Amino acid sequence: MSRQSNRTTDSKKMNSELFTLTYGALVTQLCKDYENDEEVNKQLDKMGYNIGVRLIEDFLARSSVGRCHDFRETADVIAKVAFKMYLGVTPSVTNWSPAGDEFSLILESNPLVDFVELPDNHNNLVYSNLLCGALRGALEMVQMAVDVRFAQDTLRGDSVTEIRMKFIKRIEENLPAGDE
Amino acid sequence: MSRQSNRTTDSKKMNSELFTLTYGALVTQLCKDYENDEEVNKQLDKMGYNIGVRLIEDFLARSSVGRCHDFRETADVIAKVAFKMYLGVTPSVTNWSPAGDEFSLILESNPLVDFVELPDNHNNLVYSNLLCGALRGALEMVQMAVDVRFAQDTLRGDSVTEIRMKFIKRIEENLPAGDE
Repeated sequence: MSRQSNRTTDSKKMNSELFTLTYGALVTQLCKDYENDEEVNKQLDKMGYNIGVRLIEDFLARSSVGRCHDFRETADVIAKVAFKMYLGVTPSVTNWSPAGDEFSLILESNPLVDFVELPDNHNNLVYSNLLCGALRGALEMVQMAVDVRFAQDTLRGDSVTEIRMKFIKRIEENLPAGDE
Repeated sequence: MSRQSNRTTDSKKMNSELFTLTYGALVTQLCKDYENDEEVNKQLDKMGYNIGVRLIEDFLARSSVGRCHDFRETADVIAKVAFKMYLGVTPSVTNWSPAGDEFSLILESNPLVDFVELPDNHNNLVYSNLLCGALRGALEMVQMAVDVRFAQDTLRGDSVTEIRMKFIKRIEENLPAGDE
């Protein structure tokens, strides 16, 4: 589905439950479509990536957030502005690596899993993996290559949900040939 | 995915864009999975039905809406409370049939299609059909059989989105055998 050029920028605030259930329908469909959990995880990541690539433009337009000066600032913007805006929750930013290139987002509550229990035969399913893809895709659009993965998940019995983000590199902007 | 028994009832308010894009990913996946648009429409309706069946409980708990006395009251609750709550928009209720058993919900703006253009080869796709299923499923849980379908759709070039709802019958509550 391609983007409509004349869409409005007024935003609608909605409760998260319809989104949560719709996301559940998507994961259930992928579990039917693909042979194993690893394949489903990969698809969720890919879908998330495509979403992130498109959502970043909306985010920059709405948030008036400018260029981040370092990864710590990026972490704060993701947690306090982006998660709040699109999921209605504010994770805490914690567990920084000594080099400052890795941190965790801790979600006390993950709206994606509000109605969910993993069935026994899906032990390797990373149910909310779309979020990792979305973060990766969005950040790539602002020239940051990051690795994103779930380190803890309440669906697997952990007490919180932890998304681990690792800075890989700054992506050089593509310059027209001949320029520098 | 089964419902978690101990989920909290606090609600998260979120912007609609992540939902919109995730719904787009779901429709795109179904278009890959099924041979034709009619089959996709059917699946969206079915998924919506399952969502409505579960969402109604959440809705009744949050809204404190009691039993509706007639179909006009039902129409108002759907438009002013349910749509506002779960999609962030308030459709107008209009085009009542003389018998009072049919009305239209007119959406000036449909959050599901904010980023969407239908590709040429999907002329029969009822993109937002999940909404019809959700309305049907939710109402069935409160003993109302209704027929729900899109009568107009901005995605097809109409100036508004119109959902047509027709009351079919009141469903008798299942009574234990021997009672009356």
